[in-house]
Amino acid sequence: MCELLGMSANVPTDICFSFSGLIQRGGKTGPHRDGWGIVFYEGKGFRTFKDPNPSCDSKIAQLVQSYPIKSCAVVSHIRQANRGEVSLENTHPFTREIWGRYWTYAHNGQLTGYEKLNTGHFKPVGETDSEKAFCWLLSEIEQHYPEKPEDMSEVFAFIAKRCDKLRELGVFNMLFSDGDYVMTYCTNNLHWITRRAPFGKASLIDDDMTVDFQQETTPNDVVTVIATQPLTNNENWHKMSEGEYCVFHLGEVYATNQDEFQQETVS
Amino acid sequence: MCELLGMSANVPTDICFSFSGLIQRGGKTGPHRDGWGIVFYEGKGFRTFKDPNPSCDSKIAQLVQSYPIKSCAVVSHIRQANRGEVSLENTHPFTREIWGRYWTYAHNGQLTGYEKLNTGHFKPVGETDSEKAFCWLLSEIEQHYPEKPEDMSEVFAFIAKRCDKLRELGVFNMLFSDGDYVMTYCTNNLHWITRRAPFGKASLIDDDMTVDFQQETTPNDVVTVIATQPLTNNENWHKMSEGEYCVFHLGEVYATNQDEFQQETVS
Repeated sequence: MCELLGMSANVPTDICFSFSGLIQRGGKTGPHRDGWGIVFYEGKGFRTFKDPNPSCDSKIAQLVQSYPIKSCAVVSHIRQANRGEVSLENTHPFTREIWGRYWTYAHNGQLTGYEKLNTGHFKPVGETDSEKAFCWLLSEIEQHYPEKPEDMSEVFAFIAKRCDKLRELGVFNMLFSDGDYVMTYCTNNLHWITRRAPFGKASLIDDDMTVDFQQETTPNDVVTVIATQPLTNNENWHKMSEGEYCVFHLGEVYATNQDEFQQETVS
Repeated sequence: MCELLGMSANVPTDICFSFSGLIQRGGKTGPHRDGWGIVFYEGKGFRTFKDPNPSCDSKIAQLVQSYPIKSCAVVSHIRQANRGEVSLENTHPFTREIWGRYWTYAHNGQLTGYEKLNTGHFKPVGETDSEKAFCWLLSEIEQHYPEKPEDMSEVFAFIAKRCDKLRELGVFNMLFSDGDYVMTYCTNNLHWITRRAPFGKASLIDDDMTVDFQQETTPNDVVTVIATQPLTNNENWHKMSEGEYCVFHLGEVYATNQDEFQQETVS
């Protein structure tokens, strides 16, 4: 399996604190030794850092940790390989273009019977179930919406319906972003938290690190962090339900089906 | 305008020496201050480092310079913006997938009348003439070859014919690679050199640095470096002619039309 980390914010924000917690799980406090990757959007462009080596001792992960890249939309992943060997082409996140925008995706879980998915002209490069599912989603989106629609909430509802299909094939927890929106889809393991004023302190579960967000933010900042498992032990995280999706835009919930589910928080 | 740097090698080789010379031209010994990028292939996967800031004082460029990433195929670019603002989405190289392989491209030059090029389902994300031309090339390739042909030399001859069309629109010097092959196409500024045993010493033009390749290599290594302008002042570089293309595979010339041109070397 794997772990996911995402962020949506209304001002360019660095993710160093959360990323420091996540990468400990890549071989130190967790078994996800088979590569890691992170995508930071800046406008319509993006930067990707990836490594098939464990994040806990990756020199490139150290750079990302120590060099604060600020972004309004981030997607990250650490991998414990099941389908597909440990290699750069099998390392998440994956990024492809539709409608003149780069879409980035990362998956936690495992699928069976995915080989038959028709991915159209989006051909997988690696061998993972995850990339195959990504290519299928893009192909479905592009067939259904040859042009980008005005109403993006309709698109995300469509994507969630397609994710329901993937959930029939196994465990499918997902992050999906075009740099404006960050979408989450849950089968069994996905949590999020929105931080806003009044900001407090937070302590990482996986590393001896505490941050006082009051010192790091302005009163108007809104920052949502999404993770497979909560990263801090003194905050309340929303636990997502099976089949629930949530789309964040500038840190706020933009579209969701969460009314259909009983809401739980965990700390 | 911009500068290009490429490499094709038969063993994974680092490009630190050449890259150290190139990045000086990004604001120090040259005017190409408007961003830089580099793509390293590893198998079918790749890593990209990019920055819209000048390479000569980029922290990420320092990492690339000091952390030897070894690869058999590299494409790099430093930018002096003409079409399209200074931003991450306008920073080369650009990478897209066809036939289940990632293709990477960087362009030096400037085109006019490029707006009308039909790019099919490959939509540009940024505003540059370069990315538009890339999307058009991919669309032409995919239409002509829906499946990857056995004989790649035929494909590269086809691509070169399309590059001839782009050359009618202005200056078009290009690097193009799928990780196996590195293709060069020249309008007016492109040079290459193949280093093999017996190896000698080389000194950078743009920095006070000399390397003794004898110490860094084994006798079977074959490494070709491609650059807009020669990077060293004590070696003989092949100067490419207008309309000439050359495809390198594992450091050796794989396909070319260079017999049609008078060969020149510069040192």
